[in-house]
Parts: sequence; C-alpha cells; structure tokens
Amino acid sequence: MENTNSESFKRVTQVGIVVRDIERSCKAWARLLGLETPRIVETEVPEVTGMVYKGKASGGRAKLAFFQLENLSLELIEPIGGPSSWSEFLDRNGEGIHHIAFKVDDIGSAKDILRDVGVNVEQEGNFTGGSYAYTEPDSPLGAILELLSY
Amino acid sequence: MENTNSESFKRVTQVGIVVRDIERSCKAWARLLGLETPRIVETEVPEVTGMVYKGKASGGRAKLAFFQLENLSLELIEPIGGPSSWSEFLDRNGEGIHHIAFKVDDIGSAKDILRDVGVNVEQEGNFTGGSYAYTEPDSPLGAILELLSY
Repeated sequence: MENTNSESFKRVTQVGIVVRDIERSCKAWARLLGLETPRIVETEVPEVTGMVYKGKASGGRAKLAFFQLENLSLELIEPIGGPSSWSEFLDRNGEGIHHIAFKVDDIGSAKDILRDVGVNVEQEGNFTGGSYAYTEPDSPLGAILELLSY
Repeated sequence: MENTNSESFKRVTQVGIVVRDIERSCKAWARLLGLETPRIVETEVPEVTGMVYKGKASGGRAKLAFFQLENLSLELIEPIGGPSSWSEFLDRNGEGIHHIAFKVDDIGSAKDILRDVGVNVEQEGNFTGGSYAYTEPDSPLGAILELLSY
C-alpha cells in the first residue's frame, strides 16, 4: 500500500454535530460533560471564508460552539441560512453527527488521496488561521469527512 | 456543577458508521487509512446479547468491522435484519455516522446521568466481555451516544 499520506488520517481531531438550537444543545452537553457552556460564535463572512458549496460561491453560515474533550473536540453547528453541507444535512436527516475531522498538512494533497478512494469534496472554505473541506455525504466511506488545515 | 460521574464522558472511544455494504466500505477505509482490511464479524445471537430495543426483546443484528486509529476506533456497521437502532438509522438517514461512544464503568449510573440531561436509552444489550447502550436519536444532545462497558 503506497499511501504515503495516510498519516493524515490516523487521528480524528473533531466530531461535528448539526443541531437545530445550539443554545439548548450547548446547555445539555455542558451539563453532561461537567463543563462550562462555551461561547457561541458565527462563521465568518463570505469575504473571509470564500466558501464554495457544490461548485458555487455560497454565503452559507452557521453558529458554532466547541467542547474540548481529552482526545478530540466536539463541535456543535446550527445552520443559520444559505446553502451549505450543514443545512442540507439538517434538511435530510434532522439533527445528528455531521462529520469527523482529520487535521492535514495540505488540503490539496488530502483531496487527491480522497479522490483516489472515490470520495469528492462538496464544500470548502477558509477561516481566520486556516482552511477546511467537507466531503460529499454519499461516498464509499459512509460518512462526511472534514479536512482541517491550521 | 455536581456531576461526579462526568469523568465518564471526557473521552470519545469510538465512532460508529452505519453503511449499506460493509465489504465495500471496509475496502475504501482500508485504502484511505493505509491499513489492512479488517475481519468482518456478526453481532452475537439474541441468547447472548439479550438485546432490548424500544422496550422489547429484539433479534436485530449487524455485521461489524473495526479500524483502530491513534485516538479512537472506527466501527463500521451493516444492519442485517431485525429491529435495531442501526436499521432505523439507515431507513431514516441512509448511510452516516450513527454514534460516538464513551467507555463507562457502570452503564446504570451513566444512564442516570443521561436521564438527568433529558436523554433516554433506546437499545441495550451484551456482548462477550461487556455490555452497551445507545441513546435515542432525538435528544437535546443532537446525537446518538453509546455507553460501552467492558
């Protein structure tokens, strides 16, 4: 197996959960985990994110909150308008686990590895300090993966 | 916050993905991860599992395969008949990330903690060497949790 980049996919760095009401879910998770309720932030404006969804520029946005666990972070995501992987997931499935994320050195080469496995990227963009890509929901992996570079 | 058992929920030990064709998904994940294709096993018979789903004994079964990553294991699950959280998930959502699992010392007390947060268990049972419980899909947490004791 000449998969020289497989180191990228050895560790799940984040689990992302799409919810309808992030305040409510934050409270429930904080209570379960015995942690403070985290700050809720909004994804940045399209001028910063340069977000592309299904091949087109999109102003899709979301509220986000993060809980740091011992071995990964939990991300809560409430879509707040515009086309995105998050809002499509919520429309199709309701609330649920949207993605698992892998930290990669280079999103471009990670996308090449995924393409070799028959998996394409559906959404990508930047945030202050990094960039990300989500794979399409229907793929041989059976799950949406996020590539995270920061 | 007097959540003395919150240590149980500090670490995600497993991510479970429900798929339609476990052989196909095993091959894709093995290629992505640069790992051997794992052995595919079937859940044990009802006499061993004592499985209860939505309050009733169930003969629901699945094929399973596991990939050990650095910080957690990935479980692939193909439902193969009978009522279960897995088959209901596949019928409702198609393929996707079914659960995140937490290893707990005592499933009974972990269920009490979850009940305090407004989350109920929908399926539970035993396997050789341990036992497990899945929470219901609709809850303030926005995700199915598995409690694992072994």
